[in-house]
Amino acid sequence: MNQYFFEDLTIGKRESLSREVTSALIEAFSEVSGDHNPLHLDEEYAATTRFGERIAHGALMSSFISAALGTVMPGLGTVYLSQTVKFIGPVKIGDLVETEIEVVARDDKKNKVTLRTVCHVATRKVVDGEATVYAPSRPKG
Amino acid sequence: MNQYFFEDLTIGKRESLSREVTSALIEAFSEVSGDHNPLHLDEEYAATTRFGERIAHGALMSSFISAALGTVMPGLGTVYLSQTVKFIGPVKIGDLVETEIEVVARDDKKNKVTLRTVCHVATRKVVDGEATVYAPSRPKG
Repeated sequence: MNQYFFEDLTIGKRESLSREVTSALIEAFSEVSGDHNPLHLDEEYAATTRFGERIAHGALMSSFISAALGTVMPGLGTVYLSQTVKFIGPVKIGDLVETEIEVVARDDKKNKVTLRTVCHVATRKVVDGEATVYAPSRPKG
Repeated sequence: MNQYFFEDLTIGKRESLSREVTSALIEAFSEVSGDHNPLHLDEEYAATTRFGERIAHGALMSSFISAALGTVMPGLGTVYLSQTVKFIGPVKIGDLVETEIEVVARDDKKNKVTLRTVCHVATRKVVDGEATVYAPSRPKG
């Protein structure tokens, strides 16, 4: 568990987190979220769609972004304020998702930080968006 | 599993989905997402924060929105294109979260629908945002 204080979160600071998407992970996400759409769970149904096979829930990528913010940067003390995401392309079973976050703006008065949040599978961008978080200041003394 | 076709998704059409947040659900979401921030898992740590107790991950609410879109409206055939969320207030163990979705705009050329996505705990709004999805047309004949 990392802990970046607000003062550490300078513009351009980057971190990333990698996670493999497995069939079991998609099934677990369906249970937790309640999203049992067969596009994610039923191979025969998924084969009839534009994707041709089961794909991960977009919100699973949002969850990876949450993990990157909550455990990597800023980590401990983070308060999640907002998120935008565009789901650009499908994520399939066996894909290794790299979630990259980068500080793009700071509000020194409110200790708020804006981060660009992007997920790639190899060189293919699958999610793009932005988060805002609150990060505590480094304790004085 | 519902199935609203694009033609059914008229402006003002509303649906909702309720889900209780339990300690076990928060722990399961931590495992699936990889977000093990102690604000969600560690009572002693959470007691030292502004929230005073463990709270659910914001991204768990995003996952409930995914479930509402993927299983209630539009349901079968939905392709998730984008989402914005503002995390307005904390969700605690035992809270019953009602996720409400409402059609607010339509793009007839592209079969795209914009829905407002709001989560309430009783009368308290905890998440506000918007989704865009693709919904297939009703088959002809």
